[in-house]
Amino acid sequence: MPLPSAFASELTWPDYDAAVRGGDTPILIPIGSMEQHGHHMPLHVDVLLPTEFARRAALEVGGLVAPPFTYGYKSHQKSGGGNHFSGTTSLDGATLVAALRDVVKEFARHGVRKVCLVNGHFENSWFIIEAIDLALRELRWDGITDLKVIVLSYWDFVDQAAIAKLYPNGFPGWDIEHGGVLETSLMLALYPHLVQLERAIDVEPATFPPYDVYPVKPEWTPCSGTLSSPKEASVEKGHILLEVCTRGIVDALITEFALARAEPRPMAQAS
Amino acid sequence: MPLPSAFASELTWPDYDAAVRGGDTPILIPIGSMEQHGHHMPLHVDVLLPTEFARRAALEVGGLVAPPFTYGYKSHQKSGGGNHFSGTTSLDGATLVAALRDVVKEFARHGVRKVCLVNGHFENSWFIIEAIDLALRELRWDGITDLKVIVLSYWDFVDQAAIAKLYPNGFPGWDIEHGGVLETSLMLALYPHLVQLERAIDVEPATFPPYDVYPVKPEWTPCSGTLSSPKEASVEKGHILLEVCTRGIVDALITEFALARAEPRPMAQAS
Amino acid sequence: MPLPSAFASELTWPDYDAAVRGGDTPILIPIGSMEQHGHHMPLHVDVLLPTEFARRAALEVGGLVAPPFTYGYKSHQKSGGGNHFSGTTSLDGATLVAALRDVVKEFARHGVRKVCLVNGHFENSWFIIEAIDLALRELRWDGITDLKVIVLSYWDFVDQAAIAKLYPNGFPGWDIEHGGVLETSLMLALYPHLVQLERAIDVEPATFPPYDVYPVKPEWTPCSGTLSSPKEASVEKGHILLEVCTRGIVDALITEFALARAEPRPMAQAS
Amino acid sequence: MPLPSAFASELTWPDYDAAVRGGDTPILIPIGSMEQHGHHMPLHVDVLLPTEFARRAALEVGGLVAPPFTYGYKSHQKSGGGNHFSGTTSLDGATLVAALRDVVKEFARHGVRKVCLVNGHFENSWFIIEAIDLALRELRWDGITDLKVIVLSYWDFVDQAAIAKLYPNGFPGWDIEHGGVLETSLMLALYPHLVQLERAIDVEPATFPPYDVYPVKPEWTPCSGTLSSPKEASVEKGHILLEVCTRGIVDALITEFALARAEPRPMAQAS
Amino acid sequence: MPLPSAFASELTWPDYDAAVRGGDTPILIPIGSMEQHGHHMPLHVDVLLPTEFARRAALEVGGLVAPPFTYGYKSHQKSGGGNHFSGTTSLDGATLVAALRDVVKEFARHGVRKVCLVNGHFENSWFIIEAIDLALRELRWDGITDLKVIVLSYWDFVDQAAIAKLYPNGFPGWDIEHGGVLETSLMLALYPHLVQLERAIDVEPATFPPYDVYPVKPEWTPCSGTLSSPKEASVEKGHILLEVCTRGIVDALITEFALARAEPRPMAQAS
Amino acid sequence: MPLPSAFASELTWPDYDAAVRGGDTPILIPIGSMEQHGHHMPLHVDVLLPTEFARRAALEVGGLVAPPFTYGYKSHQKSGGGNHFSGTTSLDGATLVAALRDVVKEFARHGVRKVCLVNGHFENSWFIIEAIDLALRELRWDGITDLKVIVLSYWDFVDQAAIAKLYPNGFPGWDIEHGGVLETSLMLALYPHLVQLERAIDVEPATFPPYDVYPVKPEWTPCSGTLSSPKEASVEKGHILLEVCTRGIVDALITEFALARAEPRPMAQAS
Repeated sequence: MPLPSAFASELTWPDYDAAVRGGDTPILIPIGSMEQHGHHMPLHVDVLLPTEFARRAALEVGGLVAPPFTYGYKSHQKSGGGNHFSGTTSLDGATLVAALRDVVKEFARHGVRKVCLVNGHFENSWFIIEAIDLALRELRWDGITDLKVIVLSYWDFVDQAAIAKLYPNGFPGWDIEHGGVLETSLMLALYPHLVQLERAIDVEPATFPPYDVYPVKPEWTPCSGTLSSPKEASVEKGHILLEVCTRGIVDALITEFALARAEPRPMAQAS
Repeated sequence: MPLPSAFASELTWPDYDAAVRGGDTPILIPIGSMEQHGHHMPLHVDVLLPTEFARRAALEVGGLVAPPFTYGYKSHQKSGGGNHFSGTTSLDGATLVAALRDVVKEFARHGVRKVCLVNGHFENSWFIIEAIDLALRELRWDGITDLKVIVLSYWDFVDQAAIAKLYPNGFPGWDIEHGGVLETSLMLALYPHLVQLERAIDVEPATFPPYDVYPVKPEWTPCSGTLSSPKEASVEKGHILLEVCTRGIVDALITEFALARAEPRPMAQAS
Repeated sequence: MPLPSAFASELTWPDYDAAVRGGDTPILIPIGSMEQHGHHMPLHVDVLLPTEFARRAALEVGGLVAPPFTYGYKSHQKSGGGNHFSGTTSLDGATLVAALRDVVKEFARHGVRKVCLVNGHFENSWFIIEAIDLALRELRWDGITDLKVIVLSYWDFVDQAAIAKLYPNGFPGWDIEHGGVLETSLMLALYPHLVQLERAIDVEPATFPPYDVYPVKPEWTPCSGTLSSPKEASVEKGHILLEVCTRGIVDALITEFALARAEPRPMAQAS
Repeated sequence: MPLPSAFASELTWPDYDAAVRGGDTPILIPIGSMEQHGHHMPLHVDVLLPTEFARRAALEVGGLVAPPFTYGYKSHQKSGGGNHFSGTTSLDGATLVAALRDVVKEFARHGVRKVCLVNGHFENSWFIIEAIDLALRELRWDGITDLKVIVLSYWDFVDQAAIAKLYPNGFPGWDIEHGGVLETSLMLALYPHLVQLERAIDVEPATFPPYDVYPVKPEWTPCSGTLSSPKEASVEKGHILLEVCTRGIVDALITEFALARAEPRPMAQAS
Repeated sequence: MPLPSAFASELTWPDYDAAVRGGDTPILIPIGSMEQHGHHMPLHVDVLLPTEFARRAALEVGGLVAPPFTYGYKSHQKSGGGNHFSGTTSLDGATLVAALRDVVKEFARHGVRKVCLVNGHFENSWFIIEAIDLALRELRWDGITDLKVIVLSYWDFVDQAAIAKLYPNGFPGWDIEHGGVLETSLMLALYPHLVQLERAIDVEPATFPPYDVYPVKPEWTPCSGTLSSPKEASVEKGHILLEVCTRGIVDALITEFALARAEPRPMAQAS
Repeated sequence: MPLPSAFASELTWPDYDAAVRGGDTPILIPIGSMEQHGHHMPLHVDVLLPTEFARRAALEVGGLVAPPFTYGYKSHQKSGGGNHFSGTTSLDGATLVAALRDVVKEFARHGVRKVCLVNGHFENSWFIIEAIDLALRELRWDGITDLKVIVLSYWDFVDQAAIAKLYPNGFPGWDIEHGGVLETSLMLALYPHLVQLERAIDVEPATFPPYDVYPVKPEWTPCSGTLSSPKEASVEKGHILLEVCTRGIVDALITEFALARAEPRPMAQAS
């Protein structure tokens, strides 16, 4: 019987329990942030996108999406513009580590043995890995040694073929894809009412020296807050990205968790 | 000019910045949990309800709703059934304290000086207060001494008149209102597609001795997970609750933050 | 052979060891605070009272009283007047959690398997429970899974019959029983030399809105520091309370720890 | 007007406030432990003794004694027999540091500017100093830079003349004065009903190699738990110690805090 | 007068004090790790290399090298082979953050206002940045707001021209430069006695999927522990790297710290 | 086959692994500090000396020296002059505890079962012991219960015969041996180029009252920073110390770890 929703939070506990008790159902946890994304996109891009990728992947493999982490680690200047912006609302590293550690341990207590962390905010990456390490350590102390965790950032599945289509004039590199073509195209395809492309500022790709300085020098970041221009974003590119990244995530889940593709089920709505 | 959304996360950073820079716009932070709520309601009741109250109040006073805390403190047996249930997914106390402390400090950095924490999960209460104390302490060290914080749980605004309408056969007390008439009526009024009242189990009001025991004794909690029966819940009662609690929250905001009621603005959708 | 003292701290280690090694002897840990209690009572009411209840219960069931926690969590305005008072000397939440966690683990190392936490300060409650959870978690990692913990606040055993005798003119509610009839009557019955009833201020019962504000608004708390008047306190009421609460605690211990009532033993002196 | 008690905890908050507000009244905080002290002495020697020294010194200089720390740091084998004994009930280092830091900060908030930490348990020493450092750091962040702290262990005031009287057959060194002549004599002078000298075991002075081993080797500690024999303890030696240590502590307070000796006041009872 | 050593640790405190008091002398802190580097290189490559770059840069700008961090964050599988190897000896993230935070604050207390963190271990990067953020925060609370910090990893200064010389057959990417041509060439140029190139294993460049799995799958890492082959390493390439990276670091210091190039001074020996 | 180096960090991982896997090879971890040592010695005395003792002992018993801890706990006024000096660069207690705990656990993961902590900085002592306790606790949770740890400070092996030779005019006590005859003689014997005896200040032995005061009173410490005069230091005394302390450490290792003396091996160079 298919689950009534891809979102664990929309299930009753008996339905959730039935789904996860045996350990076969994977849980996908979106990890986002509240971070400025230029003049044309809202502060929650990094929550919306991994949540949607998690939902699509969950539907394909019969998994469940956990409630997203709505706040993340501090924005770095060279990948997110810097944490000095208004709107950017971040956690200390230790806080993010503790929160994710706690949640992974709780899912393991329920019986979950397959966890996929779907990251939507580059700066979270290292703290996510520390959290996994601490969670696995404490679970080991509790005698649980068979939890398997995949951690991924959705953009890492964009392959050369897709890059060629997305950036016909040359790829500026992931480093400065903050509020640029990738994120904007995805938002246009998924949440067009939240994108105001007409307000986007057509900045040159940001260039940085090969080091960081603290306190950050605000003048290093383009005044828009984005690190490259979103002007070439489009719905079509969004669909290319949705397709390639979802496929990559699904393949990773199937490979690592030895899953079958799920029976098609009626698409649940994003809450 | 009215804000395009009650949700801070749906704003661009320049719009957010314009709204909060002067310190007059209040931020409402919903604090929830992922917790079992019986056989008839989903795991995210404690996120959905305070988020909706925050949204309604924000619209009335020109405030903004911050991203909700999607995980909360551990469920206590005598108010939430206990943390041993499947589906209940909780943070350590120190984790919740740290997360909320970090977020309050970030909003203060942006210029916010009026914060309202809208709690939807009883067990969060004491850790919320500790987080406020730590945030105010660190902000003081940063020279910020004019942040004002209101903390409330929405059900505390239900007055005797409403109780009489909600519980015509006698009020069992808030202690055991877990998954009962209050929460179920609100969910029926707001998210009926997430309520399966036909699956609700008509338990007697739970009775507990005047102490707690750890590890919890699972047999103390009704097998449904709710501490009282939701059978008398109704959409109408939900509307009574929506009205009385929203009014109470709005009045608190106006009184403590010296606010005016906002110009009516087009209702934003709950994301 | 009866123990020479109800206080573990007054025993030699061989006597203590003989008493606890088998796991049958319960340990009662009083958890107090240093907190203002109005113009008529000393700062240590919340230590003295739970220690005495623990002592009486220990004598009845053959248990031992651990050294009290002499400092507790911060005073809340609506239950203790607020932490801004002079004299009120409080711990951060994390500190109280750590201290209690450590001590519970140490008693378990000695062989204790029955621990009762006797709380005398409302605001400690949630941090006590977190401490138990962490202690049980770490003990589990050490292979100790049979520790049982009761946690109680002595006033929760006051039943309706006692309330009727204590508050013939109507019960104002536990919330504002800070430095009022309950605590003052108990102190009059036990430590009359520490009570200066003639200095008590006859305040109206405090009324608070259904939310909290931080920083606290000192004007919300009656200038006395108490939240209701102690004028109707009496030695007789103190004895009623001593009787009903001790009985309740003893019954809880006997029920949950499967104890027999102890042989009468010579009353040990409070140190 | 003399204070009604040397114990801060026995004062009402207005009396306490009047005493400390100006910053002139020193607060003495006894820091103890719950630790085995041989077959002849109770587990709370390290609380009782510094509390009594603090009380005597407070009476002489018009100071106040704070509630004692009833638990302390782990017993070291070469100074306290080791933490493996039953009855020895210890805190992690971080816990003791946090608790003392919190309390010192609270006293400073009340206006106290002269704090004396009276240690009764050798192993606490380094964590006390760390706590002071952290408290002074955070107070500095709060703009409080005039708090002065004395930290002492009472036995450090025993001079050569006293040693000659206490150990006519040669001084074995402070290192192994655990449960020996010093502590036993003081207890005999102050709390004779808590000493069972007839049960003392007449061990040879413990000898240890110039290093420590962990886990401890229980066979290194004499089976009594004391590190030297208490057989030569006496009431008279106790009085010598009381005199010399109290005088030393009082002199330190007068010198460092620029105090005058207090008017004689009626001796308050140890609670 | 030139400093007698580039190493702060080799100075007396008066010489150190004279050098740093005014705030002009930069301090360079090498941050390394103890981590396996294949069959041909020792465990301390990541300490030796940044220490030498720091020393060279310090000599050119009149700076001082602080004692290196000899342990670092856990090895990631896709950049360091994984933390499961024997020999790899790592700190928790929170530990590294705390240690670096403490040390930066201490240098600021001495008067240092220019700090450069010279990283030699990729996985340290994010924890270094968190440590800087926490140090700057606490220093701000102490009224110190003019500390400037540069953070860099030496390999980020290798430019395209150098890459062309180092990897004539194509650059495999920094990701898998663990124990490969870069590090091996540098070690050959600097510490040839610590390199046993004949024991190196000529592995194919490692390939990884675009995600991580935990616990790590040991079979993903080449059995050598390196992620690419060091066979093409040479002393000459080492000198190219020394030159280009030192120049880059020196330029960064001069630019950001507004320094002049130092008078040539006699080369101090690496300790 | 003898190891190619006494320093673990100079081994390849396969060589290290072969050495430690079976658990018989002891690891010696030098724990130092960066601390002022007067006008005549560098800041790293407390790293250099324990590292050299560890190296000598390792060569004699076939052990390995781990990378030293280059920063330590805060300097106390009465044993190190105080932490207010420029150059003294210290960690918080919790930081040192965490770092040492992590490292001990990692060595245990590799298979090491014999760890010797060689302390060179008095103030580290209590935090080292706490770190061991926490490491053993967590290792126990991982099922590792056979790790044995020796902790020592090298000067504790100086016997009466050596003292008579070192201090022919009377021994001032270890307490004030900071930058005095002991450390200076050792440095003269080992690192004469780092000693400038002509700059030493011939201070009288420092005298302190039997208590500490915080914030420290800088006038209590001799202006040199040393607590006694190094003028009587000599290379010969250094060799006496090297001999007696090395012998003591080696004997402790052999006794506690049931080791044989190692085959002589070619002396490895200190890196």
